[in-house]
Amino acid sequence: MSRRYDGAAKAARAEDWGDIGMGAGISIRAGIVGASGYGAAELLRLLQTHPSMRITYLSSGSGAGQTPGAIFPQFRGIELPTMEAFNPERAAEAADVLFLAGKNGTAMKITPALLDSGRKIVDFSADFRLKSTDTFSAVYKMPHESPHLLEEAAYGLVELNRPAIRRARLVANPGCYATAAILSLAPLLTGAVGGGPIADPATFIIDAYSGVSGAGRSSLGLDYHFPEANENLTAYKVIGHRHTSEIEQAIAGPLGRPAAVTFTPHLAPINRGILATTYATLTVDIDSDALRAHYESFYRADPFVVILPDGEHPRTGAVRGANYVQISVSVDPRLRRATILNAEDNLVKGAAGQALQNMNLICGLPEETGLIGTGVYP
Amino acid sequence: MSRRYDGAAKAARAEDWGDIGMGAGISIRAGIVGASGYGAAELLRLLQTHPSMRITYLSSGSGAGQTPGAIFPQFRGIELPTMEAFNPERAAEAADVLFLAGKNGTAMKITPALLDSGRKIVDFSADFRLKSTDTFSAVYKMPHESPHLLEEAAYGLVELNRPAIRRARLVANPGCYATAAILSLAPLLTGAVGGGPIADPATFIIDAYSGVSGAGRSSLGLDYHFPEANENLTAYKVIGHRHTSEIEQAIAGPLGRPAAVTFTPHLAPINRGILATTYATLTVDIDSDALRAHYESFYRADPFVVILPDGEHPRTGAVRGANYVQISVSVDPRLRRATILNAEDNLVKGAAGQALQNMNLICGLPEETGLIGTGVYP
Amino acid sequence: MSRRYDGAAKAARAEDWGDIGMGAGISIRAGIVGASGYGAAELLRLLQTHPSMRITYLSSGSGAGQTPGAIFPQFRGIELPTMEAFNPERAAEAADVLFLAGKNGTAMKITPALLDSGRKIVDFSADFRLKSTDTFSAVYKMPHESPHLLEEAAYGLVELNRPAIRRARLVANPGCYATAAILSLAPLLTGAVGGGPIADPATFIIDAYSGVSGAGRSSLGLDYHFPEANENLTAYKVIGHRHTSEIEQAIAGPLGRPAAVTFTPHLAPINRGILATTYATLTVDIDSDALRAHYESFYRADPFVVILPDGEHPRTGAVRGANYVQISVSVDPRLRRATILNAEDNLVKGAAGQALQNMNLICGLPEETGLIGTGVYP
Amino acid sequence: MSRRYDGAAKAARAEDWGDIGMGAGISIRAGIVGASGYGAAELLRLLQTHPSMRITYLSSGSGAGQTPGAIFPQFRGIELPTMEAFNPERAAEAADVLFLAGKNGTAMKITPALLDSGRKIVDFSADFRLKSTDTFSAVYKMPHESPHLLEEAAYGLVELNRPAIRRARLVANPGCYATAAILSLAPLLTGAVGGGPIADPATFIIDAYSGVSGAGRSSLGLDYHFPEANENLTAYKVIGHRHTSEIEQAIAGPLGRPAAVTFTPHLAPINRGILATTYATLTVDIDSDALRAHYESFYRADPFVVILPDGEHPRTGAVRGANYVQISVSVDPRLRRATILNAEDNLVKGAAGQALQNMNLICGLPEETGLIGTGVYP
Repeated sequence: MSRRYDGAAKAARAEDWGDIGMGAGISIRAGIVGASGYGAAELLRLLQTHPSMRITYLSSGSGAGQTPGAIFPQFRGIELPTMEAFNPERAAEAADVLFLAGKNGTAMKITPALLDSGRKIVDFSADFRLKSTDTFSAVYKMPHESPHLLEEAAYGLVELNRPAIRRARLVANPGCYATAAILSLAPLLTGAVGGGPIADPATFIIDAYSGVSGAGRSSLGLDYHFPEANENLTAYKVIGHRHTSEIEQAIAGPLGRPAAVTFTPHLAPINRGILATTYATLTVDIDSDALRAHYESFYRADPFVVILPDGEHPRTGAVRGANYVQISVSVDPRLRRATILNAEDNLVKGAAGQALQNMNLICGLPEETGLIGTGVYP
Repeated sequence: MSRRYDGAAKAARAEDWGDIGMGAGISIRAGIVGASGYGAAELLRLLQTHPSMRITYLSSGSGAGQTPGAIFPQFRGIELPTMEAFNPERAAEAADVLFLAGKNGTAMKITPALLDSGRKIVDFSADFRLKSTDTFSAVYKMPHESPHLLEEAAYGLVELNRPAIRRARLVANPGCYATAAILSLAPLLTGAVGGGPIADPATFIIDAYSGVSGAGRSSLGLDYHFPEANENLTAYKVIGHRHTSEIEQAIAGPLGRPAAVTFTPHLAPINRGILATTYATLTVDIDSDALRAHYESFYRADPFVVILPDGEHPRTGAVRGANYVQISVSVDPRLRRATILNAEDNLVKGAAGQALQNMNLICGLPEETGLIGTGVYP
Repeated sequence: MSRRYDGAAKAARAEDWGDIGMGAGISIRAGIVGASGYGAAELLRLLQTHPSMRITYLSSGSGAGQTPGAIFPQFRGIELPTMEAFNPERAAEAADVLFLAGKNGTAMKITPALLDSGRKIVDFSADFRLKSTDTFSAVYKMPHESPHLLEEAAYGLVELNRPAIRRARLVANPGCYATAAILSLAPLLTGAVGGGPIADPATFIIDAYSGVSGAGRSSLGLDYHFPEANENLTAYKVIGHRHTSEIEQAIAGPLGRPAAVTFTPHLAPINRGILATTYATLTVDIDSDALRAHYESFYRADPFVVILPDGEHPRTGAVRGANYVQISVSVDPRLRRATILNAEDNLVKGAAGQALQNMNLICGLPEETGLIGTGVYP
Repeated sequence: MSRRYDGAAKAARAEDWGDIGMGAGISIRAGIVGASGYGAAELLRLLQTHPSMRITYLSSGSGAGQTPGAIFPQFRGIELPTMEAFNPERAAEAADVLFLAGKNGTAMKITPALLDSGRKIVDFSADFRLKSTDTFSAVYKMPHESPHLLEEAAYGLVELNRPAIRRARLVANPGCYATAAILSLAPLLTGAVGGGPIADPATFIIDAYSGVSGAGRSSLGLDYHFPEANENLTAYKVIGHRHTSEIEQAIAGPLGRPAAVTFTPHLAPINRGILATTYATLTVDIDSDALRAHYESFYRADPFVVILPDGEHPRTGAVRGANYVQISVSVDPRLRRATILNAEDNLVKGAAGQALQNMNLICGLPEETGLIGTGVYP
């Protein structure tokens, strides 16, 4: 489970970039629409060191006319484009590829025009994640305004959907919790004799804790006020969090029938990181070592998924600022129940990093380009 | 779910104190054996404001000869007895009641002599929690040296065992995780037609996060080094934590047969607090409101258990420094699965507070005496 | 520097309570006006265990009609009066003593009527702290509406003003930073031959860090949003913080002439606590030990001021939730410069605790009544 | 104060690398001696994305035989050299340049042989920082074993010593606190008519707070145990911290005479970051804007020093994981006193980042190569 990056990724060039007119060695111009939130700031940070992309367009409703440094203190002194009010023609003109980082309900309005201009899009919001408009309306309490794009949009969980992403014009970047949950559960949906699941989907329980950046930067609720969130653990949206549908959709696919899971999100006093503990009752006799080998095999070609050795468990700190996911696997033979732990950075693999991983694939770049930074720990 | 304390507890006096020779209104002399850890320090804090007890004896191996203020900075300037090397005669002479706060394996050595001296004892360690010496030896990797006391020792989970505690000479204070888990699970073990459990014990999963004080003050492991623990979430002892046996014993009792549960402890970057999320598949059709009413009824006489209203969930911050436990109850009707959340302060209800609650009962005091302080929040 | 509390404070009764008609042993009825902030919540917590006061009136504009438990999760399950919209007649009728915990500018409007009703008042706000209306207007950007009360109002820094507080009807509770700064500086203003200062006031620099609860509970600014404040240190209001005037007024008094100091407030990612590091150039030759002895002598009668021994420095954690202040004293003989460190809990000694200490004195109770709880550490 | 990085740094190549035999475009082989601490781990992270260096040698006494991933969880799954026991021949053979990250007292033993082998060295320790062996012995309580190298060693505070660093074989990387203090003070030592200081060095006070990673990874003291350090602010080594001498040496140089300063280090509950608040009495009439312009001018050619605009103050969070330093400047005209705030990441600009900045210069690379990552905020 080790990788060498000195070669491919450091030297990454846009070799397969013909379709939007870029020659090898020429930087891809990247734009961010809705650039005043935490996900966008993280993408700015990642793009700042990306060897093949440069930031040429930033829009923000609230931040129009301001530099990123005036909004985010970490960019003081760094030259970056001034935020503009969003204009689709201007966006399409200024950037080859666009990351949409606005609120739910925004992307479905502006995506059609941007696609018509030939831009490639990765959307951070929930707008294109769910294939069913009925489910979307029920969960997000709004009608879908671009239902014709739902079929086309590739679900951007790279490890499970790489071929579709490579050829996509539009990628729906997964939810942060959904990324952690699905990466934990996916290997359980296969591996039995005949290819079926090795665990009973009716027993899937995902218990997850997230850092407070998951609540965003504009929603200054009391729950996220430092003295309330600090030194505190609590749960929220117990039974009924919106990512439940996204997880269930991802399970239903390989399973071939609808699925229902229990998912409990909690808030922990950390800035970044999701730790997801997933429980599943196994349908086959398999011990911890064999289940770990199954996970290693499942993710053997995935540079960002690290299966930990026996006795080690994921730490959100170890993937802070990084696109890596750490997973551990344990089985209680008394109960034939598996406990899968998974740590990601909700702003990187759960948002900006995965978005960039998706865009790298769209652009024909090695998926790890600009993403090989390791965890900022401590 | 409200209580008035201005009356009984504030005026609490030792009315039923005949058996160890104290008259009404005369302070009970309390001693702590092994007083250099976090649990002992918390007990010192609680005893400092207890209206009917005063601290007259402190022993510590590492701290002998020092004042509490030299060991714990919060006691600088506060008059308290100097720590002594433990001596059973001296302890029995200096104190009417004794709290044993040493490591596992200590209490079982010194308790017989202290009981013979007529002292009443609450032990913080695991020594007298498990009724089976076989289980004790298997879990704690040592033989039991006072097996004759296991039958007599009362398990000090007050809400479930008050009558036995009242008449006990020796109380085994429950583990911090076990307290949270058992208070979450106990109501599920009753309530069905015929009195049986309303949930299937084979489905019990306890997913718990603890603050780092749970690791103690003397074990300065790398995992508890600030830069490692801070901004980090992780799991430890996945499948096989020692409190699992204690939880299973508590379930087996009402159930009338052995039980096996899944319990996953995690470490969260807070000083104090345990948040336990417990999952159980229900065997009866019952919705959230009805299950909540069942919990309220179950704990209606318990001053320290607060069942939260619909839409609210426990916060460890809300019980910081307090003996209260907050519980919320939710049911997903799709899966007939209950999600029970429970917050306690691991050093108070999970250790020193519960110990004092036990000792109050032993001494015939109202159990909330000296324990009515509310959460130090924020 | 140690104290014994088993006697006086635990048995405290209202012996000197004649002037507002309470007999010995009868609880004093306490009300809080503006009870939805952190200072008020902390006072509720302290009053909950106060042996001689009980809470009989709570008002809040935003919280009217709600129980404290609906606003503050730590009071769920605790019986307390429902919040009311403020009404001066009702307040005067329902409570013997009143704590005003509203925003700056509120107390000066409502205090005259409450005093006319014979109520004793401790005000948390800045309204009655400054003796000069010109300074008040310049600093707080509003005219003073009760200038006739400024002379009468006692400045409630107990350690320096006990006699005036004992006979006051109205006490201005000091600012949190001002409390720390003044307690650090006061001993330097005396002690020289002839009684003059032993340090040059023109060299006084106070560098202080506060926990985020100091920003209050209703001001949900971005700076206090958990992900922004956490893992972050910063300064604010550099040169010009409003407590500067309060500190300067307190120095000018003993000094007999105007004073100007440098005060820099910072924000630290803790819930509670102020650590103030104060620098002063000494005018006399005195070493660390002698200066420490001077501080010990200065505060020898003050139960809540703890002067630490050589080699120890204050910790905000050690006074968390407690009314104690810890002070250390060091001198660099090369520069003849003293470094004074001071830790307090901004919500206790910096707000609710000191307010209660003041009210105890007003009511003729021992000042430590209900305040002997030690630091909740860790 | 803005910079564009898309050009030079991203395309950085080793153009001036003749002297150690590397051709343009060929990666420089970097080794780390003493690679099991936080500084070394941070350097590993930075080198992992450095376009012109690759890690070819790692030694560690305690970690010999282990992979970095077995020691640091953030490197699980990343291919890196296995740690070796230190051997000077092997080190010189395996790496072109060497970073020494061991404890104080180690580098002075091994440096002579490594220099003889033609290797270029940046040392993280204090061994070569002080020019006076007497001061070194007095401060670090050991004799110096390579005094002949003290004259040659370049003090690696890049912004003040670039020419000497470029031609050095051996660079003494500055202390973390010293970096912050000196960058704050240096502009004050010049600028007056005739080139003299614009502030009186006898008034220099540096009040600094550091994150706990500054205490290192192997010293698991109680003060750094999570429950003790968290929610706590305290000072340590008040008057007499070892970096005082380093700061004083840096001031004495431009000043032309010995200097003495007051420096107070504090511990704050953050992983990374130093916030230094520096006070100085000005000798000239200059307001905040003019002093800010002076600082901007002083650092106009320094890519990593950001002078903040009026009204903004440095945040440690904004430079987390980054090599940038943020500085703000304020003047109180009443007292003619300047307050300079400075934020750095103690592990980056205060250790590994500055070490790499130094090594870039030694290797003839643009100094910002591999260091343009912005703050990981939140």
